[in-house]
Amino acid sequence: MVIRPHGFAIWEFLRDELDSRIKKSGARNAYFPLLIPQSFLSKEAAHVDGFSKECAVVTHHRLRAVPGAPPGNLEPDPDAKLEEPLIVRPTSETIIWHMFGRWIQSYRDLPLALNQWANVVRWEMRTRPFLRTSEFLWQEGHTAHATAEEADAKAKEMIHLYADVTRQMLAIPVVMGVKSPSERFAGAEDTYTIEGLMQNGWALQAATSHFLGQNFAKAFDVTYKSSDGDEEHVWATSWGITTRMIGALIMTHSDDTGLVLPPAVAPVQVALVLIFKSEEQRKAVVQFADAAFSRLKARGLRVAVDDRPNMRPGAKYYEWERKGVPLRMEIGPRDAAKNAVFAAKRIGGAKQSIPVDEDFEAVTCSLLEEIQQEMLQRAEERLKSRTRRVASYAEMKDLVAAGGEDSGMFLVPWKCDSGNERKVREETKATLRCYPLEGQEECIGKDCIYSGDPATHMAVFARNY
Amino acid sequence: MVIRPHGFAIWEFLRDELDSRIKKSGARNAYFPLLIPQSFLSKEAAHVDGFSKECAVVTHHRLRAVPGAPPGNLEPDPDAKLEEPLIVRPTSETIIWHMFGRWIQSYRDLPLALNQWANVVRWEMRTRPFLRTSEFLWQEGHTAHATAEEADAKAKEMIHLYADVTRQMLAIPVVMGVKSPSERFAGAEDTYTIEGLMQNGWALQAATSHFLGQNFAKAFDVTYKSSDGDEEHVWATSWGITTRMIGALIMTHSDDTGLVLPPAVAPVQVALVLIFKSEEQRKAVVQFADAAFSRLKARGLRVAVDDRPNMRPGAKYYEWERKGVPLRMEIGPRDAAKNAVFAAKRIGGAKQSIPVDEDFEAVTCSLLEEIQQEMLQRAEERLKSRTRRVASYAEMKDLVAAGGEDSGMFLVPWKCDSGNERKVREETKATLRCYPLEGQEECIGKDCIYSGDPATHMAVFARNY
Repeated sequence: MVIRPHGFAIWEFLRDELDSRIKKSGARNAYFPLLIPQSFLSKEAAHVDGFSKECAVVTHHRLRAVPGAPPGNLEPDPDAKLEEPLIVRPTSETIIWHMFGRWIQSYRDLPLALNQWANVVRWEMRTRPFLRTSEFLWQEGHTAHATAEEADAKAKEMIHLYADVTRQMLAIPVVMGVKSPSERFAGAEDTYTIEGLMQNGWALQAATSHFLGQNFAKAFDVTYKSSDGDEEHVWATSWGITTRMIGALIMTHSDDTGLVLPPAVAPVQVALVLIFKSEEQRKAVVQFADAAFSRLKARGLRVAVDDRPNMRPGAKYYEWERKGVPLRMEIGPRDAAKNAVFAAKRIGGAKQSIPVDEDFEAVTCSLLEEIQQEMLQRAEERLKSRTRRVASYAEMKDLVAAGGEDSGMFLVPWKCDSGNERKVREETKATLRCYPLEGQEECIGKDCIYSGDPATHMAVFARNY
Repeated sequence: MVIRPHGFAIWEFLRDELDSRIKKSGARNAYFPLLIPQSFLSKEAAHVDGFSKECAVVTHHRLRAVPGAPPGNLEPDPDAKLEEPLIVRPTSETIIWHMFGRWIQSYRDLPLALNQWANVVRWEMRTRPFLRTSEFLWQEGHTAHATAEEADAKAKEMIHLYADVTRQMLAIPVVMGVKSPSERFAGAEDTYTIEGLMQNGWALQAATSHFLGQNFAKAFDVTYKSSDGDEEHVWATSWGITTRMIGALIMTHSDDTGLVLPPAVAPVQVALVLIFKSEEQRKAVVQFADAAFSRLKARGLRVAVDDRPNMRPGAKYYEWERKGVPLRMEIGPRDAAKNAVFAAKRIGGAKQSIPVDEDFEAVTCSLLEEIQQEMLQRAEERLKSRTRRVASYAEMKDLVAAGGEDSGMFLVPWKCDSGNERKVREETKATLRCYPLEGQEECIGKDCIYSGDPATHMAVFARNY
């Protein structure tokens, strides 16, 4: 996967906001090695099962020319074989807990909260751009605590933080919940998740936060001396969000014309498109547009000027629409003459002439704010109307199979059971996305949609990326 | 290598400043894959020679349990062997030029300037923390141009940018020069470098910028249609600066007490150290310090408050000194009573009482500015006094061998010759660091210090990290 500048800029805006909020939450950034000895992976039993089957393995530290072959033919040098293979990190719990063991001695060292911005590799046989790639970029936070309660509260705090940023910046509403045992992170006691609903009715796991119990502390023997002088294992969390969010953004908001980007993360928020036929017109329009550009720029907005000659206005409009730019301002000789621009929002509402008077910046900002809100509202309505309560398993199965508008998330009473979960997946291709954090009381007195036994949870099923 | 939060914060300040300047220079950030097919490396002949001997090679995409062994014993799964090994990027020219070939068609696509913040791996048998590590973090810029002149100018522009940031933020003065042919980057026509002088008299290459000619364009067949309609190969540069700079910072400024950090990158710029014996004193001092803290914080300074009880003031002072904090403000009951703090600079000048009046923030800022300037001045004096013109090769050899105060950089007339360069290295352990960009005219009419032939350059020799 290559992330080109337009896509990478979106990631940068999201990253900067997350970085600032994560620091405010008390975590500090650090950096741990990319290459991890394979024996580290083995120390936590569930972790090795989860990741050993999809990791890139480094076995040599040198290439050599293939003996007897033409120049340029290379092979791993048998004399440079590593005694112990290294794996490219699929996640960093093992190396971080190896270090936590050296850093944590006393209750005074707790809580310890570190965050890392990094690349990770989880080998994928079938990849999808942004959604499922062997390498992705992410942020991974790791914390150690004196008590289970404090660790679990931290795991919940971070999933709320992710839900909040996803909603505010990306205009993606999510269902917040906890994973069923079979969908937990390898080595976690509980995995909290946020799940978005894409336009095709499929769910997408947007971020996760794990309460790791004492599993890693025990695997790496990380203890602390409590204020009473007892040696106790510490309690842990980890939590992450990835470049997959760029994929979620595309799949949530795009339309038939192309991308639709929320102003909060759009690399270009306002495109000034200049329209002119003669050199005289060009001069007047450019002068007027430059002044408008400077004012919006000074207000901190991200603005582009499209003054390309020899290109039809319609072709210019289409290009900015395709790129998802939230607000286009057309400026022709007549607009310049009457000291106005003709504004077209990427979604919602008709074009309108806006005077370039003392309110120009404020009006532009409020148009952008409207677009951001409109995008969120549309996505929220979709999530609401396509989260269905069905009367029977048969109905859910039919609707999942129908796909498109009829499909979505299915909120059903469920008795927690890994075997039945697997059967539903095999029969419908829908998976148990989560038990929502809110509204669990609805299951009381209801029967499981699959087994008919008394329900233990309200569960969300959906097909997923 | 693990970079802990205190060190990583320094990297973040440096990175943010570089990122902003690199964007202003016209480059946009993007991201390219970590794992590169080994055949890509072979396409540029010099490049493969330079990097194939020190790269981590991924040969498998799965581990398996060792058959018959106890659980937890893993090995690369023979059924998951890659058809073509992948290398962990030692640098990204090959993958980037593979993509440039798809993106560049016409002169309108030029210049193309991309930057990437990434981790790279160059296998090291003997490592040193921060200075020589198998994995390091860096920024790598890659540009494509229509003409050789424009590309060479870009390579020079970026080495100037690095020299400027290194000097302004890290208070490290450098010698800017060009590498001799044998020290060039693998695949470059010219490598520009900045070299700092550490306190032990060794040089450290701080950053490099390469004019790549058409080598990569030809290896990856990247051409553009000129405005005349001709197909021509493009011209290239690449340039990078790494986490090694944290090592350069430590080796340039530290003293016997510990770190000395320039205010521009210090994670904590001002430490307020509270001194009290009774609870009554504590209350008064804390209240006074909180107000001072808020004012400095509001000015954008990075401030820490040390209100630890049961710790001797001397122990607190020592800890903040060891951490390299530029400015310490001691606040005891008497200071609070007279509305002042007692300020101690980490280097340069005696302690002084500073009133917490309306000029408090301004005085604090100017103290920090003084420290930054004092650090730069000291480093400049050292670079100047220890850059020596020697009368003979024998003298240089003796001084290099003596080391310490007597050693440093040796500016000598030289006839460019890779063989003689190698001999000097074998005989003295000093290497040819660069031909300085300024002052080359000094060589005119002089004879090479080694061969006795007419000199072609003024060269800087030094031992180096």
